[in-house]
Amino acid sequence: MLGRVLNTHQQWLCRRLADLGLVVARQLAVADTGHDIEAAVREALARADLVITTGGLGPTTDDLTRDLIARLLGLTLREDAAVLEHIKQFFAARNRPMPERTHLEALVPAGARVLANRHGTAPGLALAVKPNPFRADKSSSWLVMLPGPPRELQPMFDEFVVPLLKREFPLAAPFVCRTLRTTGVGESVTQEKIETPLQTLVAAGLEVGYCARPGAVDVRLAARGARAEELVREAGILVRRQLGAHIFGEEDDELESVVIRLLTERKQTLAVAESCTGGCLAHRLTNVPGASAVFRAGLVTYSNEAKQKFLGVSEETLAQHGAVSEAVAREMAEGARKQNQSDYAISVTGIAGPAGGTPAKPVGTVFIGLAGPAGTIVEHRVNPWDRLTFKNVTAQQALELLRSRLVRAD
Amino acid sequence: MLGRVLNTHQQWLCRRLADLGLVVARQLAVADTGHDIEAAVREALARADLVITTGGLGPTTDDLTRDLIARLLGLTLREDAAVLEHIKQFFAARNRPMPERTHLEALVPAGARVLANRHGTAPGLALAVKPNPFRADKSSSWLVMLPGPPRELQPMFDEFVVPLLKREFPLAAPFVCRTLRTTGVGESVTQEKIETPLQTLVAAGLEVGYCARPGAVDVRLAARGARAEELVREAGILVRRQLGAHIFGEEDDELESVVIRLLTERKQTLAVAESCTGGCLAHRLTNVPGASAVFRAGLVTYSNEAKQKFLGVSEETLAQHGAVSEAVAREMAEGARKQNQSDYAISVTGIAGPAGGTPAKPVGTVFIGLAGPAGTIVEHRVNPWDRLTFKNVTAQQALELLRSRLVRAD
Repeated sequence: MLGRVLNTHQQWLCRRLADLGLVVARQLAVADTGHDIEAAVREALARADLVITTGGLGPTTDDLTRDLIARLLGLTLREDAAVLEHIKQFFAARNRPMPERTHLEALVPAGARVLANRHGTAPGLALAVKPNPFRADKSSSWLVMLPGPPRELQPMFDEFVVPLLKREFPLAAPFVCRTLRTTGVGESVTQEKIETPLQTLVAAGLEVGYCARPGAVDVRLAARGARAEELVREAGILVRRQLGAHIFGEEDDELESVVIRLLTERKQTLAVAESCTGGCLAHRLTNVPGASAVFRAGLVTYSNEAKQKFLGVSEETLAQHGAVSEAVAREMAEGARKQNQSDYAISVTGIAGPAGGTPAKPVGTVFIGLAGPAGTIVEHRVNPWDRLTFKNVTAQQALELLRSRLVRAD
Repeated sequence: MLGRVLNTHQQWLCRRLADLGLVVARQLAVADTGHDIEAAVREALARADLVITTGGLGPTTDDLTRDLIARLLGLTLREDAAVLEHIKQFFAARNRPMPERTHLEALVPAGARVLANRHGTAPGLALAVKPNPFRADKSSSWLVMLPGPPRELQPMFDEFVVPLLKREFPLAAPFVCRTLRTTGVGESVTQEKIETPLQTLVAAGLEVGYCARPGAVDVRLAARGARAEELVREAGILVRRQLGAHIFGEEDDELESVVIRLLTERKQTLAVAESCTGGCLAHRLTNVPGASAVFRAGLVTYSNEAKQKFLGVSEETLAQHGAVSEAVAREMAEGARKQNQSDYAISVTGIAGPAGGTPAKPVGTVFIGLAGPAGTIVEHRVNPWDRLTFKNVTAQQALELLRSRLVRAD
């Protein structure tokens, strides 16, 4: 609550639960104090069939969640031998002494199920609160406690919580949901293009959701009931018919992973030459495991000298057209392709801002080049965003230029 | 609540409010439905002196917040001529027609203060809820409604909400707070080193907080009361004495901005040669406005051929030691410095994983080189994290290697 850490749990858990057909009604964050945590858990149990807490299971004095919940529900804590053994082995494998307080992480409330932590020490805990004393009708709820670090929480959720939820919260009717990811068209145009074709399916129960971010719009198709599968499948066909060329992937696909996959399938290689994106493009491509099989090199040629030296851009072109120009983007792409003997090369040159704009070439001006076996093309764009958004949106456009060329080349 | 968007408001607003000495007690997210929003606002007003809502002020059918709050508090909505004029001009300046529904954004609840939106159309609104009907004692609260997009919300908060809060919520006693950012030492070691020296000041009312992330630990010093200024100043001196070499900045400083500032002050230049970080280092450096004055080029030499061609790494060194080695890191740094005629060059070569590790060089192994006027050094690290964390932590260590050299060179 001091704003020193970005809370990514809300998005991650909401997304996972939505995909299971379970809609999250409330997300609440409170300070690490006994009073606030207790009040939050009480309220949540009074309200919900499923309550998930994150954090507060560690060994330090401000890790209060396990203890408070046990007390709130009148459950005794016992040391779990298997958990303690796991913790001991965790430290032994790292040649580190086990701090005395870590013993606390092996305490388990009576009746709780232990969710093993494969990436840390404190296990998760799942409790059937049955009957639930905070509900007027004393019906039951589930309370799941997860550790705070995302790299511990996420695999634990997928491995243990998903099966538990499928068993304990079976859906009354089948639920199907599918997300198509698009780039190159805005949210309102996306909506306009597919709204009318989808009308009949929406009347039959299809839900359509949009999520716009700089450089991408997601279309989420969901349905419940006996016809769910069919509705979502037919909607997918209609959306692909309307937006086909702009759909780069589904679910959690990113443009960079799609591009790396397409290149790998084709046994083709790539080099990039960046000016204004400053390495963003290379960074995104190399975030993809296995990128090294197709990604030869990235040349971040911020200065004119570097453009000449590493890419062979000619001094005359730079003098005549300026570094931010179609001609330079072309020579950068062709130079990167030649120097790296790669099948494709992408180039980017532009003005990221905040300074450096002119009336003829305002901040946000960018030229994106693509050189490949079929020749070179250059696109001119204006991306008038703040510096970081500019870099990301421009990298997105450059990746899309390559992706659309790769799929059309088939 | 479907997990399609990452909520960054909590961190940003909590941080700003904490720096003003106002601690946020609760952060709540609910779905865009009338029932859930109304319940959340009612509860918040019953509980708090200050309630801030974000989002739901736009023109679409799921933008319900303004309307619901006016109804909840029995306030009539009137169209504000100045707001409407601003919206018209906003569209005119962009040569876009004003959609009819955008008129709704000019509706203002009776008695509300309008907070101008310099980066969008829907204004923020501030209401004195006086008396507050949801509190037993009918005392008053403030209700501030802010637009959802961060680039509209953030400048609006700084320009209009901060002065309002300073006026309406004057602190009973002075509040001072300061964050020192460290790298290269873990959270527990950081705490061990400063806990004892700070004991006396803590007894006098100093609060010390820690926030650990991969590659950085923040130490937050805060105090209230007549001695606040003095307590935080003395604590700062003690912390600097204990951790001095590891402190790279204060408040919102990032290592890359500190490095760019140090190089700019010294009129020195930098080049980077990256293998396993794949452009992350160049990307972070070029996120800093003005980087182009000191950053010459980044060579992302993923393949052995690229290391030879662009950096002059010798074939023998690669064959004898392997690409992930001290010798190659050294030649990469020296090659990048020479090729770019820069004062400094940083190099990184390692195994990001998930594949590619061996018993002698496990995943996470990395060599970081620094070449400069005083010679070349190479550090060997093992960063056994997931691929993205590995890239970021390694880039952080490389930046720190340069920063510590720059400050010691003085």
